[in-house]
Amino acid sequence: MKLFITAALLSCALSLSAQQALFNSSNIVSPQINDDASVTFRYFNPSAESVKVVGDFLAADPAVVIPTEIHMSKNDNGLWEGSTATPLAPELYSYAFYVDGVRTIDPANVYTSRDVTTLSSIFLIGDGCDGLYGIHDVPHGSLTKVWYHSDILDVDRRLSVYTPAGYESSGRNYPVLYLLHGMGGDENAWSELGRACQILDNLIARGLARPMIVVMPNGNVDMPAAPGESHLGLSVPNFNLPHTMDGTYEKVFPEIVNFVEANYRTRRDKASRAIAGLSMGGFHALHISKDYPDMMGYVGLFSSAIFPLKEENIPLYADMEEKIARQFENPPLLYWIAIGKDDFLYGINTHYRSLLDAKGYDYVYTESAEGHIWRNWRRYLASFAQLLFK
Amino acid sequence: MKLFITAALLSCALSLSAQQALFNSSNIVSPQINDDASVTFRYFNPSAESVKVVGDFLAADPAVVIPTEIHMSKNDNGLWEGSTATPLAPELYSYAFYVDGVRTIDPANVYTSRDVTTLSSIFLIGDGCDGLYGIHDVPHGSLTKVWYHSDILDVDRRLSVYTPAGYESSGRNYPVLYLLHGMGGDENAWSELGRACQILDNLIARGLARPMIVVMPNGNVDMPAAPGESHLGLSVPNFNLPHTMDGTYEKVFPEIVNFVEANYRTRRDKASRAIAGLSMGGFHALHISKDYPDMMGYVGLFSSAIFPLKEENIPLYADMEEKIARQFENPPLLYWIAIGKDDFLYGINTHYRSLLDAKGYDYVYTESAEGHIWRNWRRYLASFAQLLFK
Repeated sequence: MKLFITAALLSCALSLSAQQALFNSSNIVSPQINDDASVTFRYFNPSAESVKVVGDFLAADPAVVIPTEIHMSKNDNGLWEGSTATPLAPELYSYAFYVDGVRTIDPANVYTSRDVTTLSSIFLIGDGCDGLYGIHDVPHGSLTKVWYHSDILDVDRRLSVYTPAGYESSGRNYPVLYLLHGMGGDENAWSELGRACQILDNLIARGLARPMIVVMPNGNVDMPAAPGESHLGLSVPNFNLPHTMDGTYEKVFPEIVNFVEANYRTRRDKASRAIAGLSMGGFHALHISKDYPDMMGYVGLFSSAIFPLKEENIPLYADMEEKIARQFENPPLLYWIAIGKDDFLYGINTHYRSLLDAKGYDYVYTESAEGHIWRNWRRYLASFAQLLFK
Repeated sequence: MKLFITAALLSCALSLSAQQALFNSSNIVSPQINDDASVTFRYFNPSAESVKVVGDFLAADPAVVIPTEIHMSKNDNGLWEGSTATPLAPELYSYAFYVDGVRTIDPANVYTSRDVTTLSSIFLIGDGCDGLYGIHDVPHGSLTKVWYHSDILDVDRRLSVYTPAGYESSGRNYPVLYLLHGMGGDENAWSELGRACQILDNLIARGLARPMIVVMPNGNVDMPAAPGESHLGLSVPNFNLPHTMDGTYEKVFPEIVNFVEANYRTRRDKASRAIAGLSMGGFHALHISKDYPDMMGYVGLFSSAIFPLKEENIPLYADMEEKIARQFENPPLLYWIAIGKDDFLYGINTHYRSLLDAKGYDYVYTESAEGHIWRNWRRYLASFAQLLFK
């Protein structure tokens, strides 16, 4: 029983196999993170006349829709190249190329993220803000995609659940953070764009956050699961989904809490439950925490879309003043509001804070630079998580 | 406490916010699955001179590396369009565009898959082969990304674990299928490219497969986790990794079994354990099942790379004849070999079967059309899973 094939032959044979499987062998390095943390982008295209880089690391005038661009230069071989003018701060960044005006991801970079309807290329400088976005040699939690049944909606729906390192064997009960996405987002947004697992792994390993379960539901009641993960198949994602801010999600939310508490080892008191969300998720967190005033001990409103919609038609959003008064009779241990100075929701958050101030309700306010972007939300999560369950 | 903002304004405001977050609004529909299951591709690029589609749905002459292409035509507005000549069979397909010779994914399609080093666009016709790749209204299992510690390698490593619907609450113990990837693959390959969760959900719901746990480890002992999921950050994936076929993985494999059996409710006898793998994973499945002859009751070799490498230096691959004789003294309940007629490994599999035939060892052989491609491996999984634990 002898088979005379050597490692070299195997590698050759598997390269042939790779062709069968539609592989592509590109030798172009892009993005290249330089030693000084500047970044060089490369793109091979002899026939293109102009190639630009756009990215969330480029200076953007909040009044201008299109961010500043990097214009790439072409060499004689048709290879385009362009670099950032300066080093970049440790962070996770998104970018795309515009090739003669046509947007494309970077073909040399296999790492992408989908933010609602748009796929972008991504890269990481250092290990992100405070090193929290990197995967270090620390104990790692698990991330589970699990389905629960909504009796009210009569449909199975998908959740992402982070359980901290040691959960499987510790026998302990854990507090739970419910972490909500923004409009057009889904149950994958916080783990993929938000680096939630890395942030929690690293904070817990450093002793800066308590071990906790983080539940990331899908806030679009018309969508059982993220695009590509439901019966809708690989259909085009939609930014404006119906029934996202009409009170339905707030109404069905206790089903999620009940599922989590029935299926995970949780602590089941108000002081062991937190809810936070970004943008539309902040709106949801605000209303869920006020409508179930005994449920959530910690509330985080990240760049929150604080809009009562058609409150005359939607009982859940009516009587907001009275309901918040009831919530603050036995107030949350922490009511945390964060927003960036350039956020288009800055004004409405300022107004909301003035209403809380007028009533003397306690809250903690954090103001950051920049606008309605994921790097703010990752930082807000890192800050908020350190304040929980202590 | 009144905030006078209507839904229409909110939508407008969030569209502005979308710009902050680097969104792209494309109105191009591509791919378009037509009513007759033909597919139309579109790509906007006024300045390009030639745009072609390549994809694994196109006829490929096994002797020719580049598959047949679809040449797209440009209209006066710069929109390119091309369609398949015929309807496509229900399946998950991969494709890319070549724009003036430069490979790119389809910018209008947010769905991609990374196969080792290459990102491609994907689409699904119907719900795939026998409807098994779609997400139907059936009970869904969970998929967990979990880390275990390898004492031998002294590193934490990542696993994907599918637990069938009802696992959380049933209290039952389940049999386990260990499902291994090919060269350059990782612990995400079977769930992402292989549609393993959908195949299992659907087979179990139809009563065609027993509820089982499916463990998808990472077979590259030098890689703690898939590209982008380890301390290596978002580094360029590598096809030829060291130590993948030198006996190390087979040596450390019992650590994976021990972790799974310590942390999941499993049945822990040979008749309740199966191992299968594709290509390099078939090689691993062959050697693991022969080296631990009391461990695996079911063995699946999918397009298997049956190569003993440097057997003079690697004790694990030496004495193969004697070890397989020992394995077949108390034979597996099923030894299942599958390969495609066009697979570059067809000859070596035929040779291996002749060796088994010469000894009179029982096995089941399945021969399919086509070559070394994922649609064969998805079909092999669907066939193999129906034969297990019965």
